[in-house]
Amino acid sequence: MNRPWSNIVTEEEERRYRAAGFGREGGLGKRPALLIIDVQYRTIGTREAPFWESIEEFKTSCGDTGWEAVRHIAPLLERFRERNLPVIYPYVAPKQSFDKGRLAAKVPELMTIAQDGYRFVEEIAPQEDDVLLPKKHPSAFYGTPLASYLIDLGCDGVVVTGCSTSGCVRSSVVDAFSYNFHVTVPEECVYDRSPAAHAVNLFDMAYKYADVKPLADIDAALAMIGGKETS
Amino acid sequence: MNRPWSNIVTEEEERRYRAAGFGREGGLGKRPALLIIDVQYRTIGTREAPFWESIEEFKTSCGDTGWEAVRHIAPLLERFRERNLPVIYPYVAPKQSFDKGRLAAKVPELMTIAQDGYRFVEEIAPQEDDVLLPKKHPSAFYGTPLASYLIDLGCDGVVVTGCSTSGCVRSSVVDAFSYNFHVTVPEECVYDRSPAAHAVNLFDMAYKYADVKPLADIDAALAMIGGKETS
Amino acid sequence: MNRPWSNIVTEEEERRYRAAGFGREGGLGKRPALLIIDVQYRTIGTREAPFWESIEEFKTSCGDTGWEAVRHIAPLLERFRERNLPVIYPYVAPKQSFDKGRLAAKVPELMTIAQDGYRFVEEIAPQEDDVLLPKKHPSAFYGTPLASYLIDLGCDGVVVTGCSTSGCVRSSVVDAFSYNFHVTVPEECVYDRSPAAHAVNLFDMAYKYADVKPLADIDAALAMIGGKETS
Amino acid sequence: MNRPWSNIVTEEEERRYRAAGFGREGGLGKRPALLIIDVQYRTIGTREAPFWESIEEFKTSCGDTGWEAVRHIAPLLERFRERNLPVIYPYVAPKQSFDKGRLAAKVPELMTIAQDGYRFVEEIAPQEDDVLLPKKHPSAFYGTPLASYLIDLGCDGVVVTGCSTSGCVRSSVVDAFSYNFHVTVPEECVYDRSPAAHAVNLFDMAYKYADVKPLADIDAALAMIGGKETS
Repeated sequence: MNRPWSNIVTEEEERRYRAAGFGREGGLGKRPALLIIDVQYRTIGTREAPFWESIEEFKTSCGDTGWEAVRHIAPLLERFRERNLPVIYPYVAPKQSFDKGRLAAKVPELMTIAQDGYRFVEEIAPQEDDVLLPKKHPSAFYGTPLASYLIDLGCDGVVVTGCSTSGCVRSSVVDAFSYNFHVTVPEECVYDRSPAAHAVNLFDMAYKYADVKPLADIDAALAMIGGKETS
Repeated sequence: MNRPWSNIVTEEEERRYRAAGFGREGGLGKRPALLIIDVQYRTIGTREAPFWESIEEFKTSCGDTGWEAVRHIAPLLERFRERNLPVIYPYVAPKQSFDKGRLAAKVPELMTIAQDGYRFVEEIAPQEDDVLLPKKHPSAFYGTPLASYLIDLGCDGVVVTGCSTSGCVRSSVVDAFSYNFHVTVPEECVYDRSPAAHAVNLFDMAYKYADVKPLADIDAALAMIGGKETS
Repeated sequence: MNRPWSNIVTEEEERRYRAAGFGREGGLGKRPALLIIDVQYRTIGTREAPFWESIEEFKTSCGDTGWEAVRHIAPLLERFRERNLPVIYPYVAPKQSFDKGRLAAKVPELMTIAQDGYRFVEEIAPQEDDVLLPKKHPSAFYGTPLASYLIDLGCDGVVVTGCSTSGCVRSSVVDAFSYNFHVTVPEECVYDRSPAAHAVNLFDMAYKYADVKPLADIDAALAMIGGKETS
Repeated sequence: MNRPWSNIVTEEEERRYRAAGFGREGGLGKRPALLIIDVQYRTIGTREAPFWESIEEFKTSCGDTGWEAVRHIAPLLERFRERNLPVIYPYVAPKQSFDKGRLAAKVPELMTIAQDGYRFVEEIAPQEDDVLLPKKHPSAFYGTPLASYLIDLGCDGVVVTGCSTSGCVRSSVVDAFSYNFHVTVPEECVYDRSPAAHAVNLFDMAYKYADVKPLADIDAALAMIGGKETS
């Protein structure tokens, strides 16, 4: 089967993982929440443009690959709303003078993004009663009460979208897995500035932590759960 | 410069990360601890052998690439002992009947590794007063008191070794970074069953979370810190 | 109503809490787990004896008040087993040479309890498939994967028993509440070496974090949930 | 010695704790941070008034006992500023529609406090570069990156002030102790709506988790540490 990582991970490597027993399916859980991570203008730009042009607006932009993902997240979000399943927006909180630490040492440019970049992308913006979750570190679980919200909402799984595949998405997926939530990643709904990192992180997650699947398959499974039937 | 990921991550991708401002150096910290993660016979086999032969003994073995790493960890461990810097062994605790969860769903074979595989590798085994840290999830910080040990030991950094680069090493590095510890990865001292995942995870960590460097450079920096001078 | 804290907390104080709106009921949840915290011989002695006699065996013993609680935990445990609800044993792990930290500074005697004291009390000992959870700090959640176990077991609540009321029970209750689990404390099933601390911590928990109730009321509510009918 | 709990905890109980070995001193640490927890108008009212009058403005007010504490926190804060030691303000974030959970079930009135009540008390308000730490749960560590800030700031201890003694102060103290930070509580600088809960929680903390002392003693010890000499 052609997978997003097929050009970069060899068939021999995949055989190694299967021999070790990795990669079984886990399922969506009975009541998954949708996580839309860091889909703010700072990661895609205020208008669709190629990478090198887009970073002139925000250094942290992933460019048009991000806009492409937004177009896939939109119908998935619609599906969650239709079925009354929870939607959660972990997002990068604007940096304050006291937010230094290892992040500022490693990536100093992150400290000076214009306030405007922190706005949510309009096409998939939060509605009333969605959970807004400011975060200071990569994982949506680290230093936040995300686990508390999921437990209160009666969720046993998360569907993870947004960016970057190799950064905040990856670390949130590993933490969700560690908490024993079911974890699903629709492969068209996550994005990254590096195609190699995007592909290999999908591979890592698929074999070790999550069900990584085409959006259509996930949407079909979602149509079977939740409170409200689709017409 | 030739880096472990140069054959798999393009120069264009590296330029993207540099344009976004990623990848500055963070330094060792004033008092780093050495983490030796999951270096148990279950991840390398009881004797050195190629991958496909080694997994006949333990399905979770990475084979000879693990033994190669152990030969590099040994002198680094010696350096930490010589300078009276703390050494911590996060390790996979033998599975019990109640340890099911997402891990057993995703990788059922992990539940049936022989007890013998959980022993520490003799060449770099713990000594009295080293911290032993059983863990049930990928990150050495998740569901363990590792942060408490580091704070009690007065450490402000960690040097991370062991396996797998794309699994427990990667997730421990991200958590250490999130806690604001200085994070360093000596590239010859971590290992993985997938060369592609190994390379790209080193790339991810180098640009976002850690100083990823040749062992010789790290050893030279270690020789400058700590309580005891080398002869 | 006469409550365990009625002799020590004034009626005026209770009116203050009620005026602030504290103390509503939260309920058991649909599927609570039973936590039996630190019921090891080190906290009650190997045979029932008054406090001052009992601490000659183990300095950490609460004496006969602990044995009294064990007699109440026994039928509650039976109820959980009968209804196939999960049972979890958070317990103090024997101290190792590297376990120093603030605990050893504050209470040095805790470092030298005989190994024998760490055994579970036979009358309410774990059975196969119960979760055993070693811990190094007061709360059963701190530095342990307890939240992961509860999520995997599909639990939305905890019934907390054991000791000490003002120590590990109290801190576990606050953390369970913070995670948004339903929290219930059967007042006869927790114990402490200080009657004042016991009473006031029950008061604190009752008004802020948990349903604190007589065992009979909790047992009646438990009889209504879970998979199996009682005869 | 007369202690804040002497009228409520018997001498026999104190002897029990000492017999068990509880209550040694831990010290301030080399570089403590000051935590000022929840000192917002919602916990003391916008002007000094007795309890029953004050709760007419905000149901969560502790009344004049809170103003009394503020007058003691002010010079302590001055001492921290003078010595360039970090100051951190954990505070209750205004409730949003999605913040329900166990808190709303237990204390529904907490959900409807006027926005005005969330302002910091002017007499001891934050200055630029102080760390502001919004929180959703009792402990200043739970679901927040407080540990990351303390590690980044090079702190090995915390001096805890604010309210309530039996709520957010108590749970923050237990978590700080579990992380192995040195913990100190100046007894005049914490406040509560219940005198009994205030006294017994000071007793609990003093014997198990923290150095609980008169402000004058702590101020004298602070004068010996940090970068700048007092005149």
